[in-house]
Amino acid sequence: MCSEKSFTAVTCTAPVNIAVIKYWGKRDEELILPINSSLSVTLHQDQLKTTTTAALSRDFKEDRIWLNGTEENISQPRLQSCLREVRRLARKRRGGKDDDATPRSMSHKVHIASVNNFPTAAGLASSAAGYACLVYTLAKLYGVEGELSEIARQGSGSACRSMYGGFVQWVMGQSADGKDSLAKQVESEAHWPDLRILILVVSAERKHVGSTAGMQTSVETSPLLKHRAECVVPMRMEDMTEAIRQRDFERFGQLTMKDSNQFHATCLDTFPPIFYLNNISKHIISLVHRYNAYYGETKVAYTFDAGPNAVIFTLDTVVNEFVEVVKHCFPPESNGGTFLKGLPVSPTTLTEELRSAVETELTPKGLQYVIVTKPGPGPQPLDDLSDHLLGPDGMPTQTARVLTTEALL
Amino acid sequence: MCSEKSFTAVTCTAPVNIAVIKYWGKRDEELILPINSSLSVTLHQDQLKTTTTAALSRDFKEDRIWLNGTEENISQPRLQSCLREVRRLARKRRGGKDDDATPRSMSHKVHIASVNNFPTAAGLASSAAGYACLVYTLAKLYGVEGELSEIARQGSGSACRSMYGGFVQWVMGQSADGKDSLAKQVESEAHWPDLRILILVVSAERKHVGSTAGMQTSVETSPLLKHRAECVVPMRMEDMTEAIRQRDFERFGQLTMKDSNQFHATCLDTFPPIFYLNNISKHIISLVHRYNAYYGETKVAYTFDAGPNAVIFTLDTVVNEFVEVVKHCFPPESNGGTFLKGLPVSPTTLTEELRSAVETELTPKGLQYVIVTKPGPGPQPLDDLSDHLLGPDGMPTQTARVLTTEALL
Repeated sequence: MCSEKSFTAVTCTAPVNIAVIKYWGKRDEELILPINSSLSVTLHQDQLKTTTTAALSRDFKEDRIWLNGTEENISQPRLQSCLREVRRLARKRRGGKDDDATPRSMSHKVHIASVNNFPTAAGLASSAAGYACLVYTLAKLYGVEGELSEIARQGSGSACRSMYGGFVQWVMGQSADGKDSLAKQVESEAHWPDLRILILVVSAERKHVGSTAGMQTSVETSPLLKHRAECVVPMRMEDMTEAIRQRDFERFGQLTMKDSNQFHATCLDTFPPIFYLNNISKHIISLVHRYNAYYGETKVAYTFDAGPNAVIFTLDTVVNEFVEVVKHCFPPESNGGTFLKGLPVSPTTLTEELRSAVETELTPKGLQYVIVTKPGPGPQPLDDLSDHLLGPDGMPTQTARVLTTEALL
Repeated sequence: MCSEKSFTAVTCTAPVNIAVIKYWGKRDEELILPINSSLSVTLHQDQLKTTTTAALSRDFKEDRIWLNGTEENISQPRLQSCLREVRRLARKRRGGKDDDATPRSMSHKVHIASVNNFPTAAGLASSAAGYACLVYTLAKLYGVEGELSEIARQGSGSACRSMYGGFVQWVMGQSADGKDSLAKQVESEAHWPDLRILILVVSAERKHVGSTAGMQTSVETSPLLKHRAECVVPMRMEDMTEAIRQRDFERFGQLTMKDSNQFHATCLDTFPPIFYLNNISKHIISLVHRYNAYYGETKVAYTFDAGPNAVIFTLDTVVNEFVEVVKHCFPPESNGGTFLKGLPVSPTTLTEELRSAVETELTPKGLQYVIVTKPGPGPQPLDDLSDHLLGPDGMPTQTARVLTTEALL
């Protein structure tokens, strides 16, 4: 924390999370209460993260926010919900008294700057990391502690799961006011040390139907979604929790793939239907099934969110070979750019037998790049003052102004 | 019927049908009993039909069958079921006595020749027309009358619906022996005279997963299919029957599209997932929704079976314009071949407003051709002896040997 005259700033980072039991559909649009519980894996911030600085100063004239260097309208309802709820907790903590002696004054306006180290368009649930980081940073700024996932949820539903590391449930809850619709850690990031996650970023236009609009239409029109939420997911939540606790990759992987497919099935059952998977996505699905069939066990598992990018779960002993298989089936562009980002991967040679078992058609340039990562911790405060994205004048620094896509490893 | 010495031959034709409430999944693989009722429209045989000749002769050494000019193995269980059941009815009709005086002797072997006037690979449910025609022709040959849809069902489930013209339900039934799993005509082909059907044959490889294997995997692995069969389809059967009785195209079209989408959703919920729709299919879906949105009503409706081809339902007043829209979005190959087959279509000019409302990306050569047809009658006997596909020697004639793809209009 940096205090300089009346200026107080806090900088934190927060992770992306990938659901293995999918969230799709709200029972309350405003409070963002889901129609089913969900479960996710928090990705390591060494590869993917949002960084946010929030600052208070008596010199600030109004609340302002900059995302990836561009000022955004802070009056958006979801941003306002998060700001309001953190400030409410801050007031409550002080017994409702506004204490002018503290630099965290409730009367001061806030400036916020936030950057992702990955392209927003990559469809990597940037809103989850973004809102988790916003709420965590504001809470630190206002000196608020305790249950913050309920607030993050009101920014973006899946953001509540980015408030914890490792393996996280978002328990749907029953209450109309959403007080019991919270994230809970199932196991920490240390629980399954050899789990690895590959993000296969597909070469494609941006998604057509946003997830907020998409899930609303699904809730209104899909008979299968209702059944999924009420009858299928409750069993799968228990099953998945058990698979994670026991580090049972076979069970974890099978369920992950089935739940991804079922989510996309409910999108197709939506009217008009929503298609998030493209041809490259389908090739990846086919490749995973062929690879697993070759070995007679589940060595890799895919999951897809509201876009064509694949997220692959596997174990560290499999990464080198599977990445080679991916490079074989989706030959990368040879000119410039790093195809592999993140944790190190060693090149290997594929046997002819494996090659012919997995290859359907080769799709050159089908993938832009692959990020290799693993489960990681929840939001973190940064202590180094040089990390602040807002200068003492309350305006974004150079770092906050440059979209750090290229900085990704 | 032609009697020449000991030779007796009968030739009949049978139609293709297109389900608007889909059949997917069996509760009994051998008897072909479905997990839900279904409903279809029988297509006119002026455009699409199977023709079958069956002949009996004391000179025939064994039962034999030729499909599109190629001899096939008649010992296939489904062919055997149909043969056995028709012969059983024939015996029953004669009070169990084998009467050597009749030319329809039960001791004679049968020769069968069958041709489609459309390519089997086009995915146009050729097995439905094929088995309907086989059973109808055998029944005529053996002088059997009455309920034949139960026998056709044992050849290919959807074949039972091709035993009637117009609008046909396949009632799933409850009985373990399948006696109540029968086709019933809802309305005849004369009921909705301005209904039109376009078959958009997509340029694509053949389907990867056959429907028999596909539906078996779906029954075993898809939780959504079970729910669909038990809870969604029963309501939809009533709703669809009403829509047809009232000739309510809005309701008919909406339900047709929703049920097609739900069928494909259950394929995606199958494990491993099955994809029948390709990019061209998705473009057609998008085009239909844009066209309807432009007019603010359901003017056209799509349905897709276990392959990428679209079947479009519409009314005769819409055909000219919609075909023009299809030609605009999927510019046909200019060199040779007829793009439009079947009922006549008049070229029209599209307004600039409509063009820009419907067009996404143009996909040249995305469609091979379009067949324009309408609802038609059930199986028919042919009286002209020259139509026989088997000569007096019991061998296929020239007609039976030439795959009559080119003969399609």
